[in-house]
Amino acid sequence: MEPNASNLHSHCVEITMEVHKVVPPPHRSTFQKFKTRLKETFFPDDPLRQFKGQPPKRKWILGAQYVFPILQWGPNYSLKLFKSDIVSGLTIASLAIPQGISYAKLANLPPIVGLYSSFVPPLVYAALGSSRDLAVGPVSIASLILGSMLRQEVSPSKDPILFLQLAFSSTFFAGVVQASLGILRLGFIIDFLSKATLIGFMAGAAIIVSLQQLKALLGITHFTKQMGLVPVLGSVFHNTAEWSWQTIVMGFCFLSLLLLARHVSMKKPNLFWVSAGAPLASVIISTLLVFAFKAQHHGISIIGKLQEGLNPPSWNMLHFHGSYLGLVMKTGLVTGIISLTEGIAVGRTFAALKGYKVDGNKEMMAIGLMNIVGSSTSCYVTTGAFSRSAVNHNAGAKTAASNIIMAVTVMVTLLFLMPLFQYTPNVVLGAIIVTAVVGLIDLPAAYQIWKIDKFDFIVLLCAFLGVIFISVQQGLAIAVGISIFKVLLQVTRPRTGMLGNIPGTDIYRNIHHYKDGMKVPGFLILSIDASINFANTTYLNERILRWVEEYEAQDAEEEGKKHSSLQFVILDLSAVSTIDTSGVSIFSDLKKALEKKGLEMALVNPVGEVMEKLQRWDEGRDILRPDSVYLTVGEAVASLSSAVKCQPSNRA
Amino acid sequence: MEPNASNLHSHCVEITMEVHKVVPPPHRSTFQKFKTRLKETFFPDDPLRQFKGQPPKRKWILGAQYVFPILQWGPNYSLKLFKSDIVSGLTIASLAIPQGISYAKLANLPPIVGLYSSFVPPLVYAALGSSRDLAVGPVSIASLILGSMLRQEVSPSKDPILFLQLAFSSTFFAGVVQASLGILRLGFIIDFLSKATLIGFMAGAAIIVSLQQLKALLGITHFTKQMGLVPVLGSVFHNTAEWSWQTIVMGFCFLSLLLLARHVSMKKPNLFWVSAGAPLASVIISTLLVFAFKAQHHGISIIGKLQEGLNPPSWNMLHFHGSYLGLVMKTGLVTGIISLTEGIAVGRTFAALKGYKVDGNKEMMAIGLMNIVGSSTSCYVTTGAFSRSAVNHNAGAKTAASNIIMAVTVMVTLLFLMPLFQYTPNVVLGAIIVTAVVGLIDLPAAYQIWKIDKFDFIVLLCAFLGVIFISVQQGLAIAVGISIFKVLLQVTRPRTGMLGNIPGTDIYRNIHHYKDGMKVPGFLILSIDASINFANTTYLNERILRWVEEYEAQDAEEEGKKHSSLQFVILDLSAVSTIDTSGVSIFSDLKKALEKKGLEMALVNPVGEVMEKLQRWDEGRDILRPDSVYLTVGEAVASLSSAVKCQPSNRA
Repeated sequence: MEPNASNLHSHCVEITMEVHKVVPPPHRSTFQKFKTRLKETFFPDDPLRQFKGQPPKRKWILGAQYVFPILQWGPNYSLKLFKSDIVSGLTIASLAIPQGISYAKLANLPPIVGLYSSFVPPLVYAALGSSRDLAVGPVSIASLILGSMLRQEVSPSKDPILFLQLAFSSTFFAGVVQASLGILRLGFIIDFLSKATLIGFMAGAAIIVSLQQLKALLGITHFTKQMGLVPVLGSVFHNTAEWSWQTIVMGFCFLSLLLLARHVSMKKPNLFWVSAGAPLASVIISTLLVFAFKAQHHGISIIGKLQEGLNPPSWNMLHFHGSYLGLVMKTGLVTGIISLTEGIAVGRTFAALKGYKVDGNKEMMAIGLMNIVGSSTSCYVTTGAFSRSAVNHNAGAKTAASNIIMAVTVMVTLLFLMPLFQYTPNVVLGAIIVTAVVGLIDLPAAYQIWKIDKFDFIVLLCAFLGVIFISVQQGLAIAVGISIFKVLLQVTRPRTGMLGNIPGTDIYRNIHHYKDGMKVPGFLILSIDASINFANTTYLNERILRWVEEYEAQDAEEEGKKHSSLQFVILDLSAVSTIDTSGVSIFSDLKKALEKKGLEMALVNPVGEVMEKLQRWDEGRDILRPDSVYLTVGEAVASLSSAVKCQPSNRA
Repeated sequence: MEPNASNLHSHCVEITMEVHKVVPPPHRSTFQKFKTRLKETFFPDDPLRQFKGQPPKRKWILGAQYVFPILQWGPNYSLKLFKSDIVSGLTIASLAIPQGISYAKLANLPPIVGLYSSFVPPLVYAALGSSRDLAVGPVSIASLILGSMLRQEVSPSKDPILFLQLAFSSTFFAGVVQASLGILRLGFIIDFLSKATLIGFMAGAAIIVSLQQLKALLGITHFTKQMGLVPVLGSVFHNTAEWSWQTIVMGFCFLSLLLLARHVSMKKPNLFWVSAGAPLASVIISTLLVFAFKAQHHGISIIGKLQEGLNPPSWNMLHFHGSYLGLVMKTGLVTGIISLTEGIAVGRTFAALKGYKVDGNKEMMAIGLMNIVGSSTSCYVTTGAFSRSAVNHNAGAKTAASNIIMAVTVMVTLLFLMPLFQYTPNVVLGAIIVTAVVGLIDLPAAYQIWKIDKFDFIVLLCAFLGVIFISVQQGLAIAVGISIFKVLLQVTRPRTGMLGNIPGTDIYRNIHHYKDGMKVPGFLILSIDASINFANTTYLNERILRWVEEYEAQDAEEEGKKHSSLQFVILDLSAVSTIDTSGVSIFSDLKKALEKKGLEMALVNPVGEVMEKLQRWDEGRDILRPDSVYLTVGEAVASLSSAVKCQPSNRA
């Protein structure tokens, strides 16, 4: 073979470059590695860091503060903070009361349960939660899912007590799931709901929720029990005889008003109180209108009499046995994870805005405990609601005390103001829900995703269409499935690339990206851009050999020779962060295959774990000779080409 | 802040280093990208490459040769090749006949079906298959699974015709699954069976198969129908009264003989014919012994009368409807994938040894068609058997013609020699199976895996114990599940590392690996060692901020100052090969969080796709300013530290 590296430092005397040795990483025992791995997997935030090196008493205080964040901010609470919190607390209360009633109806529950759920859970969260902006209470999507999953087996109108029992039991299981995820530090499970999935899912759910409101907005009495787009629209247009023009006019007016208020607050964030106060104002005005004109006798349906008083205990209503256990556990799991995702995402968003930290696993425990306590005090699934938390933030909330103030306001309402809601028309509640969920349809974000990553947009579409046409849960499951499939596909088909030298430097980059990258004659330099494991070993083996064949064919064609001048194949392993027992065999297979072609293989920069496993596996296999493993591509090229050039004089 | 990069090129005048621009990759349309991605996923081997630029007639020939590899080697077939093939063909036939009978019994099928399955499928494979060494026929594990899955619902003794129909139908579905995987180019699905899973699974299956042979070896008549270790041993020791000493003595003798023959051939590969001929010799000797001593009247059970003649057609026995369709499809899927895995692995192993290529997807089509044809000619699931292929290879097989010779030999047997097997004792068949499956227990490979990767060893153990104690299918499912879970865990918790400068060079490497790597004062250089996606964005965000906090704390401690001297955080993205829409947000989140701490963030070497997505997303966000994206870590450090140092003189 003729030497063929002429554009390199071409005289032997010039090669004074030091070649750096690739060393194995420092030895660590299996137990140590296992411990590190476990810690990185389950305790990446190192929650006990602050306890290190503290005196025992301080440790106790820190421990108590860890469990009850209220002990952190409570002692320093001041009048100034209270002034901010009372404004924001009253603001979110004015939103929470009408929304609470509306969302309970969405879940097929008595309206008062929505108010109960806006009283106890915020108090629990104020003591346990670490977010300062989260406004806790019932939310639209979890209400929708809870209601629809339970209604598949039990009718809320025929068997209201059983339905209520199942709702509380599901809430209990949702709390258990949430708290367990936090305690077992499995919070990363909610990370599997990608941004694209969530945007598609929320938009679909918003449309499903809005469609359900057509019942109230059009005044229809016989409405389908299904959730899909097709049956609901079918139901709407088959019952045109039931449409009530009084209801439609009232609904249209209040919906326009509410959407206008929302628009004003969106344009000018300091007018947040316009949209925050609008629902309560609508409820008051519409109730007065109904009362004044006796509109309940003219085709406008009203809530009806509501019971006064605080949350009755409900632990005796929890169902842990019998034929509905499976349903209750499934509903708890789905609503628990969905509401957790919303709560954590909201908490993280505002924490990032204000620059404080929210501990995901701790938040899960807080939300979980809140739901466990809630389930025994007549509350259904609650979490941090996005829209109310945004209002809370804009209204200047400083601590979780705003939740306490909201809870107190709800308490006053429950004790004294319930009779006032008797004449509130259902159509206004429908308009409030539609206004609230419109914000879940995030078109700019969807466009952004379309622009950046078409595949993610497909995931988004699947979630959206799945929710609308199949069902809320299955739409979500499909989108999560596709997301995971994409990740697995990436693992199965990792990228490889041909590197070229950037002229005048020692830098090697992908020549399909950096067009000025130059092939080094005689060398084929490939980078493997992912971990090597059982799922991609075969592919990588075949793909690398195809690179070699293509290079040889092209090279021979260009040079007009019969044989290619290729002599060395260099594999840059910088990006191979892990390797498994299936993976390590690839190097001996490749080496054998390349040797058959008269080519030499060299490895560049195997990182810690890879180097270690290769070495353990290499005994007697001779892949890792000193002249086949280098620290950088540049050193490999220089050293190998000098070895060829200088063979007669230097080595011999 | 005081400048703090003193061990770098410390005078401004010295910095003459050119900073290379990071450019976006050349533009390609979404369609082009989609096409490339699709090609890499489903056609990584570029099967149409050889057709390019050929005249139409040649394309036809190449196409026919592609479908029927026999057209490739057939025309050049010579007497010399035939001499090699006839030796190997007769050798594997002498192994295939007793094994065929034995494996059919393992699958609860009439022994003759095993011979039928050694006649038609090898002929089909010889025309369609691209491996030169594969010896086709029934195999132990697929026989075991087929028999046990079908027996769960249908008794082979009470309803033998139905059982046979279901076996043929399952074979048909197995063939359909196999051919579809090949046609749809989904061959990578079998890659999800990792080496560790397979070794554990095969060892477990070998033990289960051997345990089943205790029935024949001990002469027990009432044997459990379950497969697990516990019920089988229970059955063996509850029926000690049925043990027949004549059978045990005979079994022990022949088992010792066979194992000894196996041992001899293992030590000296050129004595391959010893172990290859031993089963047939055992069958002949034991049959003569039984015949001579009328041993069937002394407690030794024999095969009994076998029908003469070639494979009867069986397409009228295929079941495509009725209550057993689900069972048949499930059995077909499991046995199809398992036997495909064995066939492809065997084909690849010997192809690598001899240096030719086996096209995985084409092989799947060949094996699939072979089973479809087989199912309508009274054959059950067949594939390339590991033990017989090894014998074939050692005996010097040159082409698939050795399969034809084997098939012809089996044909002669079927036509004329069947009466000779009437007195063959079942105990010898049991000994033949045990000897064949002992080779599936690969202790050295298991030890190797233990040495290299403890987690993989756990996967191996799970597969092994699952197969032994739960069931063959579930053990496999558990191991595959754990393997995939490990991959997902790696995706969720990618590695990050702190880089340090290797003194006297421009090289930056992980300082926990290269102990001589030096921290650059004022800089925290982190590498992200995996693709960034929805499943790890939150983790990476938190982990990187923890790196920063730990660095600051340690730095302040070391220097004895209150504030750290940290100024820049550099993220090396060389190993981030892909990113999604959830992932791109990490950089703005990090930038904001770091700016709050007064730190500056710089990115190094975003590769093609990452650069492109970052750029599309960056509009108005200002992450990708020229002074925050660099081509190498060295350039980033040099440029940023010179900017600090030279601010008064150079910039101002």
